[in-house]
Amino acid sequence: MSFFSSRWVERPVHVTELDTAVLPRGFRAAGVAAGIKPQGLDVGVLVSEEPGTVSSARFTTNARVGAPVTVSRQARLDGLRAVVANSGCSNVGDGRRGYETATAMQARTAELLGVDPAAVGVASTGAIGRELPRERVLAGVAAACGELGEGAGAFSESILTSDAGPKRCALDVALPSGTVRLCAQAKGAGMISPRFATMFCFVETDAMLDAATLDLLVGVCVKRSFDRISVDGQLSTSDTVFALANGAGGVAVEPETPDELALGEALDALLRQLALEIVRDGEGTRRVGRVVVRGAVDAVEPIARAVADSPLVKTALHGADPNFGRILQAAGQAYPEGEPFVVDLAIEGLPVVSAGDALELGQAGLAELEKAVGREEVEIELTVPGEGGETEVFFSDLSEAYVAFNSEYGKGRG
Amino acid sequence: MSFFSSRWVERPVHVTELDTAVLPRGFRAAGVAAGIKPQGLDVGVLVSEEPGTVSSARFTTNARVGAPVTVSRQARLDGLRAVVANSGCSNVGDGRRGYETATAMQARTAELLGVDPAAVGVASTGAIGRELPRERVLAGVAAACGELGEGAGAFSESILTSDAGPKRCALDVALPSGTVRLCAQAKGAGMISPRFATMFCFVETDAMLDAATLDLLVGVCVKRSFDRISVDGQLSTSDTVFALANGAGGVAVEPETPDELALGEALDALLRQLALEIVRDGEGTRRVGRVVVRGAVDAVEPIARAVADSPLVKTALHGADPNFGRILQAAGQAYPEGEPFVVDLAIEGLPVVSAGDALELGQAGLAELEKAVGREEVEIELTVPGEGGETEVFFSDLSEAYVAFNSEYGKGRG
Repeated sequence: MSFFSSRWVERPVHVTELDTAVLPRGFRAAGVAAGIKPQGLDVGVLVSEEPGTVSSARFTTNARVGAPVTVSRQARLDGLRAVVANSGCSNVGDGRRGYETATAMQARTAELLGVDPAAVGVASTGAIGRELPRERVLAGVAAACGELGEGAGAFSESILTSDAGPKRCALDVALPSGTVRLCAQAKGAGMISPRFATMFCFVETDAMLDAATLDLLVGVCVKRSFDRISVDGQLSTSDTVFALANGAGGVAVEPETPDELALGEALDALLRQLALEIVRDGEGTRRVGRVVVRGAVDAVEPIARAVADSPLVKTALHGADPNFGRILQAAGQAYPEGEPFVVDLAIEGLPVVSAGDALELGQAGLAELEKAVGREEVEIELTVPGEGGETEVFFSDLSEAYVAFNSEYGKGRG
Repeated sequence: MSFFSSRWVERPVHVTELDTAVLPRGFRAAGVAAGIKPQGLDVGVLVSEEPGTVSSARFTTNARVGAPVTVSRQARLDGLRAVVANSGCSNVGDGRRGYETATAMQARTAELLGVDPAAVGVASTGAIGRELPRERVLAGVAAACGELGEGAGAFSESILTSDAGPKRCALDVALPSGTVRLCAQAKGAGMISPRFATMFCFVETDAMLDAATLDLLVGVCVKRSFDRISVDGQLSTSDTVFALANGAGGVAVEPETPDELALGEALDALLRQLALEIVRDGEGTRRVGRVVVRGAVDAVEPIARAVADSPLVKTALHGADPNFGRILQAAGQAYPEGEPFVVDLAIEGLPVVSAGDALELGQAGLAELEKAVGREEVEIELTVPGEGGETEVFFSDLSEAYVAFNSEYGKGRG
């Protein structure tokens, strides 16, 4: 089965899918069990062997960020050589001790890899407000640096928390000037409503491009992927995207060329599908919704978010309940009071509201609608007053399983 | 047991609690079963017999409102004599037909009671996007007008949807100038995040006061009660408060007098307790939270809402999980990115975060915290940067039962 499994992401014709754990030339990675989590891999290291590697980064916009985000922001974000990550504890809210632990992770990784500490990005995920055991994580860093290999399998597992499994992809991308390799590993299933970045996504390519070009591509593609998803409307303290390009493949990608366009298309599809995997793996999720809103430029984003984050819309999606009244209510909540709010609404292409009024569906129409909302992916199209704006948000349903999972005390989760 | 059962509402010393179904002098009410709901009472009428009755009203601020809100807004809101209400269908999204049905409810009620149609407020609650059967509801209006009596029992039941039971209160209020009677009936358990009004609350008093004074008291008290609660963060299309004062008791309440103050205190306590009953009866609710936020004037409200509406905070409340990291994360989400966000946090009076960092609670402290978050009412106090602002929001937890209830298809709910 193709990695590009959602009907909402088109598989670029110029990509070849590889074993998902493959890395581009000149990258090495490892993941080890260091006892941060009760079981499983929990410390990972990724490194590019090329001194000329360039990079790009995006972080959460939450005012409350973790120590790893603080430390990473001070790093040389356009020249990262390595990433050190852990799961099991997000290292948020632990004051100076937490800051020192994040700095120590960065320093130990740099020392063992022989790179500048400012060339190491740090990312931690898990429970907030707990101490990240420094000796354990540093021992894990040492073990991982001793096990570096050409695959991303263990590394991609070491960053998971409540994920059902690894989220990763490896592609060969045929550019006009030659073939480059593009790979990524992501994690995330709860506390997901990123702005500019998801929980974690690490991207590697052996293409040769300058830092500004990489940053432009990452910025555009992140806005169209991780910035467009919501599991529970909750912006994390720790969202991080690191992208590294090391040029080891020898194919140069110059700005404003067909090469750049082709690489951008592949990166766009890759990140969109990874973002959808995060939504589909949303804690307890059964069904994924996509809400598309067209109308006034200022109106579409808050309306799309209000629909995607409404627990009433999400429970209806979960129950395959064609309760479109809740969509109208959520949309109206995000619109200025007193303004005329006359909308059209279609679900899976079936018009259900026209000019603000529910249409008479009849027996056959209702049966068709009931069938449509029972699919794995359900599309909602809303047209609101005004022109020029269009946006989309992909969202999880809300299930008893989400509640049960997030109500259980003492599991060490965020 | 006293109606004032929450520790967050002080029972005024100058009130006497009466049978909760009592009405003030000069008011009559009825509730009947008209077949709008599969079973139970679903059409109610309330009327003041005094021609000089004054009134005040508040409605939802959702841009998408129901036909009953539209029709009521065009009524004489400072001189209402009667209210007609139904449950089982909110009459939202049914276009001209829905508007005509709401108008017909108003006209039929006015005709049967011998009052001006502009003196009748209309309120409907239930599923959105369905037809309110006109002949049934008008037959119900006629039946209710034929059964008007001195009690509010059947009336208060006729407005319920997913409520566990009636929400109502009747008080004698000892003012310096004499005793007045103050009563109210409310409904609401889901789609609850009112701004300026709850789903429904109807207030009656036989005090003699002018419309401006009544409106002032209602405005202040609604802001401190229904405006401060959230079950699921969802602003309804139909929230309505009607308050009627008919002077039948002969006690005049002049503006800016001790009488006005004493009546205001009683109304304030009454509406706050009713608002808390709505939260406590939130669909599937086990525990009620109160978040108090102190800090910069502009910051406190969005932070309080972000905490109250976070599904992660709500599931932790449900599971008695002392996961305060989620409170920091939700608060940070509502604060401008990049601003210093150093907070203090106390739960049930126990300091857990100081100057942004988690405190070492130790075994005994953690045990105390675990016990505290298992109480029926849990208080969260958050101090954020800045001065001069303070607000509170009362909120329900989020349970599997809420999800199950709102995922079930075909129950005719909103």
